Amino acid sequence: MNTFGRKFKVSIFGESHGALIGVILDGVPAGLELSEQDFEQDIQRRKSGARGTTPRVEEDAPHIVSGVFEGHTTGAPLTIVFRNTNTHSSDYEQFAAMPRPGHADLTAAVKWDDCQDPRGSGHFSGRLTLPIVAAGVVAKKVLADATILDDAPVSEIAARIVEIGGVDFSTSLEMTKGALEMTGGPGMSEEAQKVLDQAIKDGDSIGAVVECVVPEIDLGYGEPFWDSVESVISHAIFSIPGVRGIEFGDGFNAAAMRGSEHNDPIGPDGRPLKNGAGGVNGGITNGAPIVFRVAFKPTSSISRPQQTFNFQTGEMDTLSVKGRHDVCFALRTPVIVEAMTAIALADLIALK
Amino acid sequence: MNTFGRKFKVSIFGESHGALIGVILDGVPAGLELSEQDFEQDIQRRKSGARGTTPRVEEDAPHIVSGVFEGHTTGAPLTIVFRNTNTHSSDYEQFAAMPRPGHADLTAAVKWDDCQDPRGSGHFSGRLTLPIVAAGVVAKKVLADATILDDAPVSEIAARIVEIGGVDFSTSLEMTKGALEMTGGPGMSEEAQKVLDQAIKDGDSIGAVVECVVPEIDLGYGEPFWDSVESVISHAIFSIPGVRGIEFGDGFNAAAMRGSEHNDPIGPDGRPLKNGAGGVNGGITNGAPIVFRVAFKPTSSISRPQQTFNFQTGEMDTLSVKGRHDVCFALRTPVIVEAMTAIALADLIALK
Amino acid sequence: MNTFGRKFKVSIFGESHGALIGVILDGVPAGLELSEQDFEQDIQRRKSGARGTTPRVEEDAPHIVSGVFEGHTTGAPLTIVFRNTNTHSSDYEQFAAMPRPGHADLTAAVKWDDCQDPRGSGHFSGRLTLPIVAAGVVAKKVLADATILDDAPVSEIAARIVEIGGVDFSTSLEMTKGALEMTGGPGMSEEAQKVLDQAIKDGDSIGAVVECVVPEIDLGYGEPFWDSVESVISHAIFSIPGVRGIEFGDGFNAAAMRGSEHNDPIGPDGRPLKNGAGGVNGGITNGAPIVFRVAFKPTSSISRPQQTFNFQTGEMDTLSVKGRHDVCFALRTPVIVEAMTAIALADLIALK
Amino acid sequence: MNTFGRKFKVSIFGESHGALIGVILDGVPAGLELSEQDFEQDIQRRKSGARGTTPRVEEDAPHIVSGVFEGHTTGAPLTIVFRNTNTHSSDYEQFAAMPRPGHADLTAAVKWDDCQDPRGSGHFSGRLTLPIVAAGVVAKKVLADATILDDAPVSEIAARIVEIGGVDFSTSLEMTKGALEMTGGPGMSEEAQKVLDQAIKDGDSIGAVVECVVPEIDLGYGEPFWDSVESVISHAIFSIPGVRGIEFGDGFNAAAMRGSEHNDPIGPDGRPLKNGAGGVNGGITNGAPIVFRVAFKPTSSISRPQQTFNFQTGEMDTLSVKGRHDVCFALRTPVIVEAMTAIALADLIALK
Repeated sequence: MNTFGRKFKVSIFGESHGALIGVILDGVPAGLELSEQDFEQDIQRRKSGARGTTPRVEEDAPHIVSGVFEGHTTGAPLTIVFRNTNTHSSDYEQFAAMPRPGHADLTAAVKWDDCQDPRGSGHFSGRLTLPIVAAGVVAKKVLADATILDDAPVSEIAARIVEIGGVDFSTSLEMTKGALEMTGGPGMSEEAQKVLDQAIKDGDSIGAVVECVVPEIDLGYGEPFWDSVESVISHAIFSIPGVRGIEFGDGFNAAAMRGSEHNDPIGPDGRPLKNGAGGVNGGITNGAPIVFRVAFKPTSSISRPQQTFNFQTGEMDTLSVKGRHDVCFALRTPVIVEAMTAIALADLIALK
Repeated sequence: MNTFGRKFKVSIFGESHGALIGVILDGVPAGLELSEQDFEQDIQRRKSGARGTTPRVEEDAPHIVSGVFEGHTTGAPLTIVFRNTNTHSSDYEQFAAMPRPGHADLTAAVKWDDCQDPRGSGHFSGRLTLPIVAAGVVAKKVLADATILDDAPVSEIAARIVEIGGVDFSTSLEMTKGALEMTGGPGMSEEAQKVLDQAIKDGDSIGAVVECVVPEIDLGYGEPFWDSVESVISHAIFSIPGVRGIEFGDGFNAAAMRGSEHNDPIGPDGRPLKNGAGGVNGGITNGAPIVFRVAFKPTSSISRPQQTFNFQTGEMDTLSVKGRHDVCFALRTPVIVEAMTAIALADLIALK
Repeated sequence: MNTFGRKFKVSIFGESHGALIGVILDGVPAGLELSEQDFEQDIQRRKSGARGTTPRVEEDAPHIVSGVFEGHTTGAPLTIVFRNTNTHSSDYEQFAAMPRPGHADLTAAVKWDDCQDPRGSGHFSGRLTLPIVAAGVVAKKVLADATILDDAPVSEIAARIVEIGGVDFSTSLEMTKGALEMTGGPGMSEEAQKVLDQAIKDGDSIGAVVECVVPEIDLGYGEPFWDSVESVISHAIFSIPGVRGIEFGDGFNAAAMRGSEHNDPIGPDGRPLKNGAGGVNGGITNGAPIVFRVAFKPTSSISRPQQTFNFQTGEMDTLSVKGRHDVCFALRTPVIVEAMTAIALADLIALK
Repeated sequence: MNTFGRKFKVSIFGESHGALIGVILDGVPAGLELSEQDFEQDIQRRKSGARGTTPRVEEDAPHIVSGVFEGHTTGAPLTIVFRNTNTHSSDYEQFAAMPRPGHADLTAAVKWDDCQDPRGSGHFSGRLTLPIVAAGVVAKKVLADATILDDAPVSEIAARIVEIGGVDFSTSLEMTKGALEMTGGPGMSEEAQKVLDQAIKDGDSIGAVVECVVPEIDLGYGEPFWDSVESVISHAIFSIPGVRGIEFGDGFNAAAMRGSEHNDPIGPDGRPLKNGAGGVNGGITNGAPIVFRVAFKPTSSISRPQQTFNFQTGEMDTLSVKGRHDVCFALRTPVIVEAMTAIALADLIALK
């Protein structure tokens, strides 16, 4: 339901226009250094403001309200809250009559018997990814700490945009950390910029693909079957609103390959010599980087008019979604993908 | 770990060459009619024997050993076991020195400190998908029963091969049940047959794509964020050995689309008029069919020689995997994909 | 870890002298009427101030920060927080050197590598029972609501003090709700008052027994073995600090009885004619009231000097615990026992 | 539901007169030596045959069917099954009309809509404690192994009968392992024997109290609140059929004590100097032995006639339970109490 994880557990709560949103982390080891400043960089990366993202810039300051004492984690549940301030609730009133295509307006209403908080999509809002990013910061610390304690190197997780609107601008992925700089801003290709600009001009939106790499991780994490590394990561990734697909290593291309091409020969250090599998064999990390790609749909809210049903009038009608929306919300997602990956791995490592 | 589900819970156990493999189902409602004959059809569909599958034909007879009394489920844990009989353990001894590329030989050894049962891949064997298929049969019954009790129509789940070795032979999917006949045997295109035959001839293997459809399901199942329908289904699907990717609705194509194309307008009955989302909005079923595609890698065990490390000699060496293996194990997976989907949905429905 | 429940889930967080304490409830049905006023009565019952309780009277105002919209629950996670205001942190500094007998000062330090928040016992504080009482208020509403929806009458849970310092002042329990008035204040016997007064006078503390009754509950809740009604209730009850024992129905007396005495004959309506079992057979409710008794230890913090080890000096030393403490904290626990019972039953009913 | 534990997980299945009963253990570390002989002693202790126990002596041979390879655990799910052979199903047919007082005959029928397997109490049978004892043997090995790996001494758990029919024959418990010999057979006092003999003579039954001690365990296991050591142990203990109460340390007596009596001063090694708390402070082990007492009711099945309702005739009627039953089933429970304690501790230690 609203908790992820078996031993490193993450629970989120709140609504877009309610008093607070936040996250409780259970199973955080005692003694990690943690301050509110530690969240700054990742929260900044999620923030809007760049071309193609919503002009709504919220006060995204994290408040640690439990689980930290004198600058380190205590071992007790760690709670981080954010205040909601910059809200325009009236924008959303019309969607009761005309639920937005691609949104949870209607499904939330059916699921919760019309009792849902509809303001700003309520609990379904993308704003809930803010506490997820905060949880990711803690999870990354847990992974870095696991390195020291168990000699289990999980080097920095890195995600970046590699494709916008069908324009692929990934360079061939080298298996070194240096090659994994963030793009999606300055690194974006000219052609991709054009696609984005045209969508803005048309009052439309556009999708993107994010690639995520965990450059170094020890062999032996994950479980056969139910809690395979791919199962746990995909579970977390599909919890991000707007994901349409995920593929590991050669991904969908693998279905067109032969075994002699796709198989990764094992090298003298026990790690694969290539990475068609994306770092996992039989559900268990094999010592190669974990590599996967995530398809994000285009933003559902568009100002361009759409035909959809009006439950008030009982007829099909034209909807033009006003308000502040990202044209390509996927531009804000690499840090969320990293957070989810860190959360998933922190739990798998804790379970080992 | 080895259990899936919150309320409809599935646990599997056993090793490929051990005494028994089996499954315990917890949370099965009392009063469902169930006999050992009910498993026949789905177990048959998983069986090998067709061109491109292993000649090892095992005695796959299910034995219900608890949870059924006088032909109906009792409400107590339901256990189904299978005996292992037709085993050639000696085939596998060489893999300690030369772990097979693409297999869990090495990762299992690292994970379990060289204590794993290596015979026939032990607990990592694809043979464990047999109890999963059995669990799927029960899950399908639970879904059919939910229809009657809660007026929640979950009509028959259907999966089929739509692509082999890169050759797509799906016809355009019509949203009627009639269009969902099983193919992969007689329905396979001539071109796909050729690709398969060539792989057999070359001692190589080939991958495939499976498409799964849940033609009718009520609105309102699933949870926002952590237990989105896609999260729960993908978790289950990546528990099938050899899956490399999953995509819902427009899938990876959605990343190249605009919102005006991808958005599904809502129609007068509250259901979408098209199905770019694959049946889910905001993690919740939206009344359209759930549609997803799964990429399966080519079989890892190939007789064609591969270069890989020999831990005994300390040098790279040539491995040719003997024994009986599927050239395209994906041909046997549609019924497993259905089983996993049924299991995932049975849990989501039980949680509602 | 810090969550209780499978489908109706309660997670608490916070430290006695931190910024906030609170509770997240997951699995609350949508549409329950709920306001901050609804918590008043139960929070009042937990409050100190009566003879034998601490003079620290805190601002115990609940703030609903998520999960409620326009006066009813939304179905999303429901979060209630409380501010900590009236704190005297300096009282507790000495306990690092001399951990208090009967407290978690030392065990918390060992468990969490000396990183715990020691102020006011941190996360181990009895103050955390405040969000538990708040969760209980919601759970009671869920139970009342279940009555209407499922025709499953769970009439009001009632707990009361029946014994203080060994003086039993319960009247023989009649199985009607009228007989279950709260005592422990005016209803306390003269002899019990004397025991309490003497403990106050001596700078000592005293224990008590609480009896809890769920007067009416349908047959059929609970599970055989692991999630028997007694298992789930006792799990919740032993989560209250200071509990030393729990017994159902005839309890420890049953061990001295014969089957012919202890067995409850079944009557014409399928409910037992007496209640030696305390309302449960084979782990499942049998239609009789659920009745159990809980033993609370005397308050550990006493001003009367105690000999215990001083880790600073390395010698046994005399400790007199200053500060504000209940002489008989058990006087404040009946409402906590009710809350835990309601939480446990809400989960069992949700799972059915 | 039918699983206990978070990381060391135990699931039981089967019915008294079905084909198999058994247990799956998940989370067992790889590399523990384990053979079918290891179960012999504990299974023998659970067996009937002594005066006061049922003459039904079953073939209780354990069969390890997964999770063990070449004499050690593999890390995969460990499954142990037992065949049911010596069954007299016809004994139980009359109980549909006249559900036995004190039994789950009626509650099981209500819970499972009359679909339960009624033969020998089906899944509610005390026979299911046999796989629990088997799970306990593995759990004890895990605890012994934890000692070596983590320097966490959990010395042998020991439970014994200390009271039969109200006759207490415990000697004062010394905190050394030597004092914890099993009694209940030869160690039983003459007075207790008389009470037992008289119950046999009268066709009646009698209850008993079991005391359990974990003589040595490190500080720091357990969680504050929801997963306190007492919460987890009591949850497991109340899963044993027929338990009416549990108390730790001073138990119910603590409610009559003063803080100055009940508090355990801390000694120079950080462990308490006495053990009023029973080894736990704030839910966390404090380094003293864990000590608790369990009240078992008298056996419900008695040949002495009882008045109870006959649903066939619609009138109160006389029931005399024929068949083979323990007069004091509690005599067989010490090893079950040990098993449950080991299971609970194995999970707490795995979670740390």
